[in-house]
Amino acid sequence: MSAASPSVFSRIVSGEIPAHKVYEDAHVLAFLDVGPLAPGHVLLIPKGEFATMDAVPEDVAAALGRVLPRLVRAVQSATGAPGINVLQNNGKVSGQEVMHVHFHLIPRQAGDGLGYRWNPGKYAPGEAEKLRDQLSLLLTDPA
Amino acid sequence: MSAASPSVFSRIVSGEIPAHKVYEDAHVLAFLDVGPLAPGHVLLIPKGEFATMDAVPEDVAAALGRVLPRLVRAVQSATGAPGINVLQNNGKVSGQEVMHVHFHLIPRQAGDGLGYRWNPGKYAPGEAEKLRDQLSLLLTDPA
Repeated sequence: MSAASPSVFSRIVSGEIPAHKVYEDAHVLAFLDVGPLAPGHVLLIPKGEFATMDAVPEDVAAALGRVLPRLVRAVQSATGAPGINVLQNNGKVSGQEVMHVHFHLIPRQAGDGLGYRWNPGKYAPGEAEKLRDQLSLLLTDPA
Repeated sequence: MSAASPSVFSRIVSGEIPAHKVYEDAHVLAFLDVGPLAPGHVLLIPKGEFATMDAVPEDVAAALGRVLPRLVRAVQSATGAPGINVLQNNGKVSGQEVMHVHFHLIPRQAGDGLGYRWNPGKYAPGEAEKLRDQLSLLLTDPA
């Protein structure tokens, strides 16, 4: 818990702050973003307060993942959008504003001016292999 | 299955195309993006081929969500990045290029010029309530 706790999203979960809720189960809540990038812009959050994804317990992360197909289908159906970005920012440098994990579901239309800035690079020789080895080691279950 | 099946990612799963794999379990595979937006840019995919998130079975979507905290921690640790964007695009209009569901984990640094284009709007009176009602109905479990 920080100085900003409970987060604005925890206060939505508790009912202290109103929101246009669209889905709720034991672990997660989904509601309309009040500053939508497009009509039907939905936020999906864990009911528990975790600042960033690295701190989310695996069962809660699984519950967030489980509901994504249903939410994407519903947002597509309600808005008629031909595409949807699912975006989850971690850390202020990433664009995260509320320090309570949230997935944005952003309906997309051709020519809407939204989307991620894409500027791909290349690995220097050996760089990818080194990162692969580091990541593989970090992701190996302890014996 | 479309003309583009099996996807390039299915061919990575099968081993036909090489990749720098960093994590694998029964349902999912993670590997380095060959055109990284930043060093340590990782892709997380379901082993099964689903074009977009709306088509992913709930248990597979849960398996994708479950591994996100571990992957975010590993990418943070290996790269030292102070932030990470998790991005999953659905549909060509959204920026999706490979028609096989994938989450991007994009390490972020201050001033890197990446990130999502943010241009929030407002709902007209009654518009949010109407969308809330449509979405709630779509997301209600059938009796």
